Amino acid sequence: MSNAKVLPLIEPADSQAVAPCCPPLTERPFSAEEAEVAARMFKALGDPVRLRLFSAVASHEGGEACVCDISDVGVSQPTVSHHLKKLKEAGLLTSERRGTWVYYRVEPSVLAAMGQLLTNASAVA
Amino acid sequence: MSNAKVLPLIEPADSQAVAPCCPPLTERPFSAEEAEVAARMFKALGDPVRLRLFSAVASHEGGEACVCDISDVGVSQPTVSHHLKKLKEAGLLTSERRGTWVYYRVEPSVLAAMGQLLTNASAVA
Repeated sequence: MSNAKVLPLIEPADSQAVAPCCPPLTERPFSAEEAEVAARMFKALGDPVRLRLFSAVASHEGGEACVCDISDVGVSQPTVSHHLKKLKEAGLLTSERRGTWVYYRVEPSVLAAMGQLLTNASAVA
Repeated sequence: MSNAKVLPLIEPADSQAVAPCCPPLTERPFSAEEAEVAARMFKALGDPVRLRLFSAVASHEGGEACVCDISDVGVSQPTVSHHLKKLKEAGLLTSERRGTWVYYRVEPSVLAAMGQLLTNASAVA
């Protein structure tokens, strides 16, 4: 595979960053590492209920919503919480507790990175 | 089946079109139907091996590749074929047999639709 001696130094800032992870899909074949990172984000959106919750947060006034705003997707409250947790783990949402409620917000840098993957691809294709 | 004559006329344009399915993620909460369609596409890219194969096809010269071109992802040939089939089922790739080989090509309309979902979202967020 690769020569160990040419491995670049990993900068802490990079290892923390959730985006951008990868080149446009049409630029070159993804490495295993790039594919791991990007697939995690795609997978998080690959469930209909999660995608509805995500769009509910993303489209809510001010770009954030509490669970009380977005529970109208026909599943139980624990299921909503489970899916929101998955979206957080994938780095797509952040959350903050304020008083009684936890507020969820879309992570713009991740969305921008995912959009770039696909936009550039579609522009080239 | 024998009742072919009562089948409704299917409009080729609509039944063939796999995209665009949905508004930008920030526009309004997705309906259940929109989420089903979009989640299927995201899910197809939500596996690291599939994503590597997809980027291998997308970045290959001419926008298409045969299995012989893209098998360098560390999995067996049957596994490669399995994942390519999944990408086809999700509408992300099309395929065509020419002689010995099956050639895979990225479906640009689907990529464009997915990119639009995320690009508009990131522009607004």
